[in-house]
Amino acid sequence: MKPIRLGMVGGGNDAFIGGVHRIASRIDGRFELVAGALSSTAEKSKASGAALGLDEDRCYGDFTEMAKREARLKNGVEAVAIVTPNHVHYPAAREFLKRGIHVICDKPLTSTLADAKKLVAAAEKSDAQFILTHNYTGYPMVRQARAMVAEGLIGKMRVVQVEYPQDWLTDPMEGEGLKQAEWRTDPARSGAGGCVGDIGTHAYNLAGFVTGLKLESLAADLTSFVEGRRLDDNVHVMLRYQGGAKGMLWSSQVAPGNENALKLRVYGEKGGLEWSQEDPNYLWFTPHGEPKRLLTRNGAGAHEANQSTSRVPPGHPEGYLEGFANIYNEAADVIVAARDGAAPDHLLPTVHDGLDGVVFIDACVRSSARNAAWVKI
Amino acid sequence: MKPIRLGMVGGGNDAFIGGVHRIASRIDGRFELVAGALSSTAEKSKASGAALGLDEDRCYGDFTEMAKREARLKNGVEAVAIVTPNHVHYPAAREFLKRGIHVICDKPLTSTLADAKKLVAAAEKSDAQFILTHNYTGYPMVRQARAMVAEGLIGKMRVVQVEYPQDWLTDPMEGEGLKQAEWRTDPARSGAGGCVGDIGTHAYNLAGFVTGLKLESLAADLTSFVEGRRLDDNVHVMLRYQGGAKGMLWSSQVAPGNENALKLRVYGEKGGLEWSQEDPNYLWFTPHGEPKRLLTRNGAGAHEANQSTSRVPPGHPEGYLEGFANIYNEAADVIVAARDGAAPDHLLPTVHDGLDGVVFIDACVRSSARNAAWVKI
Amino acid sequence: MKPIRLGMVGGGNDAFIGGVHRIASRIDGRFELVAGALSSTAEKSKASGAALGLDEDRCYGDFTEMAKREARLKNGVEAVAIVTPNHVHYPAAREFLKRGIHVICDKPLTSTLADAKKLVAAAEKSDAQFILTHNYTGYPMVRQARAMVAEGLIGKMRVVQVEYPQDWLTDPMEGEGLKQAEWRTDPARSGAGGCVGDIGTHAYNLAGFVTGLKLESLAADLTSFVEGRRLDDNVHVMLRYQGGAKGMLWSSQVAPGNENALKLRVYGEKGGLEWSQEDPNYLWFTPHGEPKRLLTRNGAGAHEANQSTSRVPPGHPEGYLEGFANIYNEAADVIVAARDGAAPDHLLPTVHDGLDGVVFIDACVRSSARNAAWVKI
Amino acid sequence: MKPIRLGMVGGGNDAFIGGVHRIASRIDGRFELVAGALSSTAEKSKASGAALGLDEDRCYGDFTEMAKREARLKNGVEAVAIVTPNHVHYPAAREFLKRGIHVICDKPLTSTLADAKKLVAAAEKSDAQFILTHNYTGYPMVRQARAMVAEGLIGKMRVVQVEYPQDWLTDPMEGEGLKQAEWRTDPARSGAGGCVGDIGTHAYNLAGFVTGLKLESLAADLTSFVEGRRLDDNVHVMLRYQGGAKGMLWSSQVAPGNENALKLRVYGEKGGLEWSQEDPNYLWFTPHGEPKRLLTRNGAGAHEANQSTSRVPPGHPEGYLEGFANIYNEAADVIVAARDGAAPDHLLPTVHDGLDGVVFIDACVRSSARNAAWVKI
Repeated sequence: MKPIRLGMVGGGNDAFIGGVHRIASRIDGRFELVAGALSSTAEKSKASGAALGLDEDRCYGDFTEMAKREARLKNGVEAVAIVTPNHVHYPAAREFLKRGIHVICDKPLTSTLADAKKLVAAAEKSDAQFILTHNYTGYPMVRQARAMVAEGLIGKMRVVQVEYPQDWLTDPMEGEGLKQAEWRTDPARSGAGGCVGDIGTHAYNLAGFVTGLKLESLAADLTSFVEGRRLDDNVHVMLRYQGGAKGMLWSSQVAPGNENALKLRVYGEKGGLEWSQEDPNYLWFTPHGEPKRLLTRNGAGAHEANQSTSRVPPGHPEGYLEGFANIYNEAADVIVAARDGAAPDHLLPTVHDGLDGVVFIDACVRSSARNAAWVKI
Repeated sequence: MKPIRLGMVGGGNDAFIGGVHRIASRIDGRFELVAGALSSTAEKSKASGAALGLDEDRCYGDFTEMAKREARLKNGVEAVAIVTPNHVHYPAAREFLKRGIHVICDKPLTSTLADAKKLVAAAEKSDAQFILTHNYTGYPMVRQARAMVAEGLIGKMRVVQVEYPQDWLTDPMEGEGLKQAEWRTDPARSGAGGCVGDIGTHAYNLAGFVTGLKLESLAADLTSFVEGRRLDDNVHVMLRYQGGAKGMLWSSQVAPGNENALKLRVYGEKGGLEWSQEDPNYLWFTPHGEPKRLLTRNGAGAHEANQSTSRVPPGHPEGYLEGFANIYNEAADVIVAARDGAAPDHLLPTVHDGLDGVVFIDACVRSSARNAAWVKI
Repeated sequence: MKPIRLGMVGGGNDAFIGGVHRIASRIDGRFELVAGALSSTAEKSKASGAALGLDEDRCYGDFTEMAKREARLKNGVEAVAIVTPNHVHYPAAREFLKRGIHVICDKPLTSTLADAKKLVAAAEKSDAQFILTHNYTGYPMVRQARAMVAEGLIGKMRVVQVEYPQDWLTDPMEGEGLKQAEWRTDPARSGAGGCVGDIGTHAYNLAGFVTGLKLESLAADLTSFVEGRRLDDNVHVMLRYQGGAKGMLWSSQVAPGNENALKLRVYGEKGGLEWSQEDPNYLWFTPHGEPKRLLTRNGAGAHEANQSTSRVPPGHPEGYLEGFANIYNEAADVIVAARDGAAPDHLLPTVHDGLDGVVFIDACVRSSARNAAWVKI
Repeated sequence: MKPIRLGMVGGGNDAFIGGVHRIASRIDGRFELVAGALSSTAEKSKASGAALGLDEDRCYGDFTEMAKREARLKNGVEAVAIVTPNHVHYPAAREFLKRGIHVICDKPLTSTLADAKKLVAAAEKSDAQFILTHNYTGYPMVRQARAMVAEGLIGKMRVVQVEYPQDWLTDPMEGEGLKQAEWRTDPARSGAGGCVGDIGTHAYNLAGFVTGLKLESLAADLTSFVEGRRLDDNVHVMLRYQGGAKGMLWSSQVAPGNENALKLRVYGEKGGLEWSQEDPNYLWFTPHGEPKRLLTRNGAGAHEANQSTSRVPPGHPEGYLEGFANIYNEAADVIVAARDGAAPDHLLPTVHDGLDGVVFIDACVRSSARNAAWVKI
């Protein structure tokens, strides 16, 4: 099977997430990177592309130019990964979607709610697929957790505790020339949410993915602890889900000692589940009234949803890149099926999940502006 | 040195916390239990007392009778431990305090705010000492954490995450004849707070003890998940401290897989600390920008506040009973000093900490009744 | 029930283990310390005794004098705790045993094999009980492990991995005035084994207690890493048990980062168990082919052997002192029964276990002297 | 930069390690699989090759044919990965080495000591590179550990404890049609060592890689616990290193609850290090007399050797496949340099490390046959 021809928007030399997408796309050998608008100038784009082995004439300084030309090429890109700062997601995605090129886009969906709605419309109008890389949903133990909830092993859900603390913005890094910090704390590029958009959405999305719950309302208290910071760096949210479950969400970028400590704990009438992103090959399961069990990736008693997203035997840890690669691998399934006009069932985050995330960010920002009043979703 | 003569109110056969107080009072050999109103009838009290080796004529069916008679005895009790359900704390403490007998009282201070205020007045009027057993403050690593915050190692405090989940009330145990469950879910005996009074106060107290922060306001969402339960069994609170720090508090009695998972995490401008009650001999310390360090009880680099509350070398775990015994040991210091009219500095929880806890419970209940509106403290 | 009148040999100021025995004897309120030969001079003994509230005339400078006089007193000691350096165990125990006074003795049994055999004879001739404080066998989760093996949940035993590393002798502390280090590295007081006698015996004893296996032969490589040290500070042993199981034992006092990291792992045809002394409220159980389960002290599914040695509910950690107190508590049962001439079944370490430990030490020393040749037990 | 043209011997459908090599070779995009003798018949090889997108005429049924033809092709393979059972390593490697094609070979080097020596000779005679995939040496925290030892942070080495338990052969899987179990328990294909060759060598190699120590002698007790098994399934070894350090090595395939629990602990005069393969993003470091520190992959204070082998920021776990890919990535450096006749310094396992491993296996087997007598290396 020929690999899928992939393009990339963003992801030039200094970027972080572009490199992650490239590795994820390579792990299962189903994509080949062949073109890119890796930077916002043609010169930089060519330099970055050269380092990646791209042909010079397929390194573009502009995503619109790229979309136009690639759409006309005989062997133009079939899919594009958009890995820019948030405000570029919508305009870039639009150009590819309208030309029938599949889009694999980083999160959050967009920097504004208005853009998010336009992007939903663009995706719905397009024949191409739109896939959002809420990559944490690709971890095998997250899939196991979701399957266990769906099968009723936890019972009616009561309490959802989700958190995503980091520490890398404890000091005002945005003033020290760190590019990753600069755009993430800039409302023009990130949108109205800082920490809540960057990692709060991951936490929110993960909780929904595993539990299947829909949010009913929230009360959020966003704070910028670092002097001069323009966006929130700490997020406290109380959650009320449809059906009566309640939750708390904490995300922070000023919590020393936390690297990427995304953690989800869910409790129902019949049991509890606990999962931590930094130790992703484990899932704690407690059937109420029995000892805790430590489920492992591809290990004893693993659910099919866990086995099918694992590459190696238990005890040989898979990590962040493999979880991310699971998104790419399933995207490949969807893209290959689309060649035949098929649209298989899948668990990939969609443009609607993306809208849901932007609605969440918007609700948090509005609630916090009103002294953490409850906001209906 | 002769042991201090101790009496006990409550703590008869079926009780839980009475036995804990007795062990805690014995560990360092500084108290001798000599009298008790262990149950609410003389007969049961005598039966429980006999099992404990008490003289029959010092087993009372009534705490008032006990207070009156013991106060007149030449070798009457010098101190009394009150280990009844919450609503008895105030009336019992009053009788002993007004006769100059020291009181060591379980938490929460009282079942109502009105009682709490009266108890403060009674304690202030008395020459006797009043000590509240917020026992978790007695753990050596909690003392270490407090000392580190006080010495500025964490810097200006920003974020406080505290939680205390349990699972023992996941099912409606109060309907199954479990005495411990019955009174804890009965407003007449527990007060207006269920889980928030029983364990939420411990979490709140611990956060304040370690950080030294004073609460400014809170927004609480209390829930009774189990059908027919009359008091909350899950507590979500957002906290705003004076000086700008913010926090979240979660306590629950319906979280399967959690036994007594009290956990405190605090983050400041310079570092972070993390402590878990179920693994109490450890304290994680991260100076921002450096690797995490695992501090141990009485271990390498232990603070004097840690060493002085430890009995054995590092690596030989001390636990809940030793932490509780530290409260008794320091109570003994205070009581011995009081014999000479001295009032030494100490870290023991006082009647004012008790009032603070009842104010917290009251504020949570009021906030929750108003849809989690912010309530000023 | 009146407490048992207890005496103590050794355990004066400066000592470590004496204080531990005293706390352990107090926790359940079944012993009262009334006499002691706490030091080897009357003066020091009286000073130490005064601090413990002993009557001056029951503070002896000599264990023989103590044994003689206490045996004649109307309310003389019923039992004595021997907590001296190893070489004193035998002569002291002998004096009490021959006068019908029960002995609770620290480990290892004696400093020489010859003494051990004489002590066995003395104990067998005496009407009094002899109890050895291999205290780690008192932990509830160790009792749970033993019961699970006995009930066949692990199946025929194959592999036993036991270790007890410490780090406190990494530097030559015996040259720096540390009394605990001095006698432990002195062959005259410790016997021919250093680390192997001090903690290797604990590891060996624990493995036997849990598995029920009897050692068939061993090959030991003992090392003194610290220059000038007269006894071993690192112990490597290969073990062959009767019936075909095999094992490894490692103990060390020069392993930086290890406090008292006693750990036992046993594997049979049907499952595995793992327990660590520093986190003693947990026991990992893997039925082969199923997920690991984390059993807890007094927690869900706890065995009766676990429940009956626990004092408080799960999640409130008990530790080293409570495990030690379980030995004292059961010793009290045995002593009380002995008043009526009864000899109840119990799990307490006996003088025969003590001999077994000294035989182990002796075999290790002999094997190591012969280049780690196999030595039959 | 054009990817390196890679071939593969072994690794057809059903195989385990072949797929791992392919992923590892893709992660950094520096290799392209273009040919293979994936199975021992042309038909099966073509079927496996088709699934991997190989051209049919470059799918061979015989490694000699493959070596001959590829050596003549203009764009023939530059390097070959050998991922067969052990006994094929030497004959296959020989064919490629003598034609100047670089070899990346799985471990152990060969199934016999004689073959190992011949392979060393073949590699030394060849201009091509020979790289052995002792993949655990590729983990960033293993590189960090090695660098710390080399820089003297641990001091003169004293004790090395290394272990690699698994549980997948607890039952006689070789009789149940599990191909992976069959050849690993067959002396003709594995060699004289079972568990000791399969995973004991990994443990031995890792200890040497991190500490830099050379083995002086060993005493090994190998056991086959499962009835009818022809090779050892449990390995106990005592180690004596040149310079006086001592160690223990345990590997097992019959330890229920262990997946791939490779763990290394090393202790020197100044400190200790502990690393566990199943949680590979962490390294415990204890400078003697100070609290333990938890070093993380690419985290605070990471050594250059750690940073340079990491792909993503700390807290986003990398795992087994990334560690394996580090071997491939460095192999690519070496191969690219070889195009220019350069031979850069590197940390990759060489044919000499492979010989060292086979010598270790041979010594273990000989020692065990002589009742665990000491065998000089």
